Amino acid sequence: MMTSGSRSKESTSSQFEHYASSQRLKKLAQHPYDLTQPDHLTPERIHQYVAESVNITCLYATERVNAETLHALKALAQEAQAIEKMQAMQTGAIINKIEGYESENRPVLHTAMRDLFDNPHTEGRAGEARELALKEHEKLKRFLKKIEEREIHDLVVIGIGGSNLGPQSIYIALEAYRKKGRHVHFISNVDPDDAAKVFQGIDLQHALCLVISKSGGTLETLTNEEIAKEHFRKIGLDPKQHFVAITAEGSPLDNPEHYLESFYMWDFIGGRYSSTSMCGGVTLAFAFGYDVYHELLRGAHDMDQAALSPKIEENVPLLVALLGIWNHNFLNLSDCLCVPYSQALSRFPAHVQQLDMESNGKRIDRWGNAVSFQTGPFIWGEPGTNAQHSFYQLIHQGTHPVALELIGFSESQRGEDIVVQNTTSQEKLLSNLFAQAISLATGQKNENPNKTFPGNRPSLILLGKKLTPYTMGSLFALYEHKVAFQGFIWDINSFDQEGVQLGKVLAKEILQLFAQERKKQPEAKGFPLGEAYRSFLE
Amino acid sequence: MMTSGSRSKESTSSQFEHYASSQRLKKLAQHPYDLTQPDHLTPERIHQYVAESVNITCLYATERVNAETLHALKALAQEAQAIEKMQAMQTGAIINKIEGYESENRPVLHTAMRDLFDNPHTEGRAGEARELALKEHEKLKRFLKKIEEREIHDLVVIGIGGSNLGPQSIYIALEAYRKKGRHVHFISNVDPDDAAKVFQGIDLQHALCLVISKSGGTLETLTNEEIAKEHFRKIGLDPKQHFVAITAEGSPLDNPEHYLESFYMWDFIGGRYSSTSMCGGVTLAFAFGYDVYHELLRGAHDMDQAALSPKIEENVPLLVALLGIWNHNFLNLSDCLCVPYSQALSRFPAHVQQLDMESNGKRIDRWGNAVSFQTGPFIWGEPGTNAQHSFYQLIHQGTHPVALELIGFSESQRGEDIVVQNTTSQEKLLSNLFAQAISLATGQKNENPNKTFPGNRPSLILLGKKLTPYTMGSLFALYEHKVAFQGFIWDINSFDQEGVQLGKVLAKEILQLFAQERKKQPEAKGFPLGEAYRSFLE
Repeated sequence: MMTSGSRSKESTSSQFEHYASSQRLKKLAQHPYDLTQPDHLTPERIHQYVAESVNITCLYATERVNAETLHALKALAQEAQAIEKMQAMQTGAIINKIEGYESENRPVLHTAMRDLFDNPHTEGRAGEARELALKEHEKLKRFLKKIEEREIHDLVVIGIGGSNLGPQSIYIALEAYRKKGRHVHFISNVDPDDAAKVFQGIDLQHALCLVISKSGGTLETLTNEEIAKEHFRKIGLDPKQHFVAITAEGSPLDNPEHYLESFYMWDFIGGRYSSTSMCGGVTLAFAFGYDVYHELLRGAHDMDQAALSPKIEENVPLLVALLGIWNHNFLNLSDCLCVPYSQALSRFPAHVQQLDMESNGKRIDRWGNAVSFQTGPFIWGEPGTNAQHSFYQLIHQGTHPVALELIGFSESQRGEDIVVQNTTSQEKLLSNLFAQAISLATGQKNENPNKTFPGNRPSLILLGKKLTPYTMGSLFALYEHKVAFQGFIWDINSFDQEGVQLGKVLAKEILQLFAQERKKQPEAKGFPLGEAYRSFLE
Repeated sequence: MMTSGSRSKESTSSQFEHYASSQRLKKLAQHPYDLTQPDHLTPERIHQYVAESVNITCLYATERVNAETLHALKALAQEAQAIEKMQAMQTGAIINKIEGYESENRPVLHTAMRDLFDNPHTEGRAGEARELALKEHEKLKRFLKKIEEREIHDLVVIGIGGSNLGPQSIYIALEAYRKKGRHVHFISNVDPDDAAKVFQGIDLQHALCLVISKSGGTLETLTNEEIAKEHFRKIGLDPKQHFVAITAEGSPLDNPEHYLESFYMWDFIGGRYSSTSMCGGVTLAFAFGYDVYHELLRGAHDMDQAALSPKIEENVPLLVALLGIWNHNFLNLSDCLCVPYSQALSRFPAHVQQLDMESNGKRIDRWGNAVSFQTGPFIWGEPGTNAQHSFYQLIHQGTHPVALELIGFSESQRGEDIVVQNTTSQEKLLSNLFAQAISLATGQKNENPNKTFPGNRPSLILLGKKLTPYTMGSLFALYEHKVAFQGFIWDINSFDQEGVQLGKVLAKEILQLFAQERKKQPEAKGFPLGEAYRSFLE
């Protein structure tokens, strides 16, 4: 292999642009596969460009690739040692670090949270993490029994970022499986209107609050916890009987004097990767029952296994990652859209946006060098068919092409459907999904320039049978691993988030101005830029 | 004026790239104002770069502009005759057309829907449109009285695209003003799970369905209407007593035999511009009362007037449009983010995304020539502070800068707030808003490359006092006019949407395959690509 030399000596910078495969891809990108040419998108091609992992089929005939491109993309995965790095992650190697600089220096073990099935890791860090997860599962089962007796109807989840978007998107996706009489509400924003709205319609006697903060120091979450406690106190209820925490062992939230129960999370679980840990677990098991949560984990675990396969035909996360890199780094498409043709997945794009952009929105490689290539793309989307009546105009006829990841299911989730004009709604939904993949690819010539579609907007379809808890788990893990693979190939650290710090520091300085005014203190240490903005508040 | 010559002769293509001001801006863009330099962002600058329209203040010190840039941008607005075109739109000129090709050939008169206050248009098309709007208002008042007697608790709004995102985003924004015991639900997606979820928890005896389709032929809406009617029939209720329509006069939905009432919309109101017409009116007046809807219109109308001012210091929609063009066409930022620091505006970015991308995602100018410059940018966003814990990592430290439009309010909407650690939640929210504008602009140097922030991410802040119905109206119109101004300056048609057609046509062909199978017909006319995709459905 031509790459064996570079593998044996230690790198000190990302080799992404220097791989032989990258050079090859750069050349191929000068004449990418043209989907608008006659007979370039054929039924045969649709049947040929297929991969499958677990229960999700990836149909990618409408990507701008041919056999040569795929060959080079496979070589890229090999040169970058993508599978080896995935293996290292899942076994607990310390991969969350920047070599030579102060950094988090941690393993990344969200996969251990669902390593509860066949052939589990029993040794090393992955084995230890799994043991910790199992203890939390026992705690969760006892807790569920305890609250069964108390007739809890509402759970208010207080958390932001990863503690919010992941669990909330799953809760919405699986609402069809909700236990009767149980509802979950989410408060995330420090905006006081967020909490005020949620507490308007809840019988607190039969409610619990779940506070999620790893450090116990997240401004938004602590503030909303205080607001929530006030609501309980105001009507004579003891918050201690109603508050539950998910936090790091030993944090201020790990305190039986203030919380009915404290579940644990650890520094090897990033917020945006935490949905299958207790962060999602408590909420989902409350809403749907423990078994549904367990099924979700089984789906995620099976996808974790699939992500270790070196064959891209069987490793959808890796394939989707590679096609993403082709579109982003070689075809220069800055935006990658996530469009689920499933209303239940309405908040899934927001989760994927966070997962991807917080992980791969980085400007340095694993050794601290500023990279000279594009890292994470812009990720956004809304459900189809709605999106077709919204931003698809630009996608079809705008001046800037994008790549799309479309998601769909053969069957509806609730099974309530009727035939109107000879087809069911589910058939209408799927017809639109397929029609968009085709029309985005082929475009259309017309003598009226306003009816001309340039085509060559690449897309792929992730197709499942039905959005069950198991499928939701496998889809969730698919995206976690897509993001990780892209980071591995770019050789960046996808697991820290230093970029969120600067804003926090400056916000504190401005808060200080408000606090000083309230305490009628002379302004000891001003922040003139903050003061200037503050002067516009009436 | 150097432009008077070009004004007098008729153009036959967009002059956007040929204006003297465009040439000037291109030069200036080689060295845009550097916000990271010491003393380039100062309190004085923050006080100086301010504009105001109606009750919305635009703070734009953190844009990469100086006096020279602003001068050139003003000249661009003049050369492109932006104000004259806005005037033409508001008085009913036929601007929705492509010269020399088959096109919609209509005026664009959503502003007439709120021309109910001082100095109304009484003549010409704008006057006629206003008369039509007034008639619908009388109809609405009668209708509200009628349903008062029937104790209606739930309104199910069935519509997609403009009939959905605009009204829904306003409903969510103003929920604090909701009348007790009245709820609105929205069904948009053809996904049968969407309707199934909504109908799960409604007492149909006390419910109405509002079906919105201008043509009466929108696939998703007609299908969901049928599903809805089935739900009523199943429990012995007569749909006629529960269904209301908003449609064009004479459409299949304009039929007293099937609808309790049919409100009208017209071809001079585009879906994405229809929220202040009955499309939003019936829903909002039901939920909040007629007076709240009327206040919304007053705010929108006042912004319509402000949009006619030639001074950009008093014309925020024009200023925001020009800054957007500077960022997009001259600084080459492909994405413009909409981030409201207000949880009530959680769906406002989805509305703005549709409004902007469907309007300006065009590849031809008003004469049918393919343009050689970028038109509409990618628009997306989520509320702050949530976004800070999600995609801001990439915004601060990614490899691809973006422009941001931040929205905030001095006061919370519900007024329920408490002091935690010496500051209120609203103060925390605003501190974060200002801190982000500053940190995105200035960045930060650090010897740890992972703590380095490149800065120069341009942003502006739209600041209001409080998110009242009046403010919501003015904000809505602000964005409508921002989008229109950009289209005017690029000389494209922002009011049609031919790009949504091709997908519809192909979807019908695939639906045909499903229908033929159901009717056990031999496949008269196949669609092999569609058939290939269909074969993957289990």
